[in-house]
Amino acid sequence: MWTRWASYSLRVNHHGGATVMPVILHGPGYSTYARTARLALEEKGVAYELNEVDILTGKGHAPEHLARHPWGKVPAFEHDGFTLFETLAITRYVDEAFPGPALQPSDVKARARMTQICSVVDSYGYAAIVGKLFWQEAIVPMQGGTPNAEIAAEGLKVTRQVLDVLEGLAAGDLLCGGSVSLADLHLLPVVEYLRMTKEGGAAFAAKPKLSAWWETMNARPAVVKTRPKLG
Amino acid sequence: MWTRWASYSLRVNHHGGATVMPVILHGPGYSTYARTARLALEEKGVAYELNEVDILTGKGHAPEHLARHPWGKVPAFEHDGFTLFETLAITRYVDEAFPGPALQPSDVKARARMTQICSVVDSYGYAAIVGKLFWQEAIVPMQGGTPNAEIAAEGLKVTRQVLDVLEGLAAGDLLCGGSVSLADLHLLPVVEYLRMTKEGGAAFAAKPKLSAWWETMNARPAVVKTRPKLG
Repeated sequence: MWTRWASYSLRVNHHGGATVMPVILHGPGYSTYARTARLALEEKGVAYELNEVDILTGKGHAPEHLARHPWGKVPAFEHDGFTLFETLAITRYVDEAFPGPALQPSDVKARARMTQICSVVDSYGYAAIVGKLFWQEAIVPMQGGTPNAEIAAEGLKVTRQVLDVLEGLAAGDLLCGGSVSLADLHLLPVVEYLRMTKEGGAAFAAKPKLSAWWETMNARPAVVKTRPKLG
Repeated sequence: MWTRWASYSLRVNHHGGATVMPVILHGPGYSTYARTARLALEEKGVAYELNEVDILTGKGHAPEHLARHPWGKVPAFEHDGFTLFETLAITRYVDEAFPGPALQPSDVKARARMTQICSVVDSYGYAAIVGKLFWQEAIVPMQGGTPNAEIAAEGLKVTRQVLDVLEGLAAGDLLCGGSVSLADLHLLPVVEYLRMTKEGGAAFAAKPKLSAWWETMNARPAVVKTRPKLG
């Protein structure tokens, strides 16, 4: 526990004493977007407190969380009184505000590709893979319901398109080449759930670059540490 | 016309001659996202060719456009054979690949705020303001249909939330302080349409910081030049 606190930034307060100004991430362990933000913090070596706001049980709409995120979603982020929501803003801030390995490529084209891959995940990937396919196959039965096959099929159709696009955009076993970037961290939690679905998992396994990427990412300590425990 | 071509980058071809390698933006003048990309090009002083793909008449799903954008949307972008889709990737690339005024703040927190404002527009603003409110009030009647009051009301409700959030995040009469940033360019085309709706326009006018921002932005040559001609 002390090692987690050891790298918190210290500020001298009005009385000359040192106060701890922690980094706090609000969001449950099962949220893909909260996990992306955690992965950025872990990869940078930033110590943080995790406040696991359980949005599936309505905690996202409690007044204290709405003060952090006006739509009651996750993640929300605090650093020395500076607050943010929206994952792309949080992860870019984490990369740029703290020391540690750069999570954005120095090459302008590779950086554009990184932003594009994050946006493809946000604009098309998440809704199809998590919102439709994984939700129907995993979450609905877990909540005692019957999956809607039509919604799952719609999800699978777009999932296949997303995988085609990402396989085409991927530089190799890291999405933007060189070292781990925010693109890898945005995609990984979504793929974790995709691989738990039958047909989605098979579609993913058929992509050689993405499969090599998964093996590379899967071995990283940050990925192992933040793996959600479901069910 | 020659001045538009004058700043295109020149490359020496295999035969020792110079070939023109233009920047091309694909997307119609009425698209808010295409306009955001154009605003970035205009503010940077980058010469470009505009290919006005008319997505409302199905041109987005023509094979030549699907090769540029797998979901048939806009904008799509080309520079020296490097292709991109997704507006955030295009605008960041335009800012970082070309000379001209910086469109991203140098301060890390201001840059995080910029990314957050762009994401709020993408995640909540566009669907409510353009997809529901403006679409029902302006596009549906233009196409001879009858607006759906319930959808328009849903759009107005989220529009009010978005305006509250943006008024709170805005630094002043430029959203991220200092000079024009990508946040200003992402929001402007959406507000152009918001102001054409009756109740949305009134809700916008009631926000002092956003109203001052509009006056500032409205006077910029890039904004005047890219203003869509509707109807």
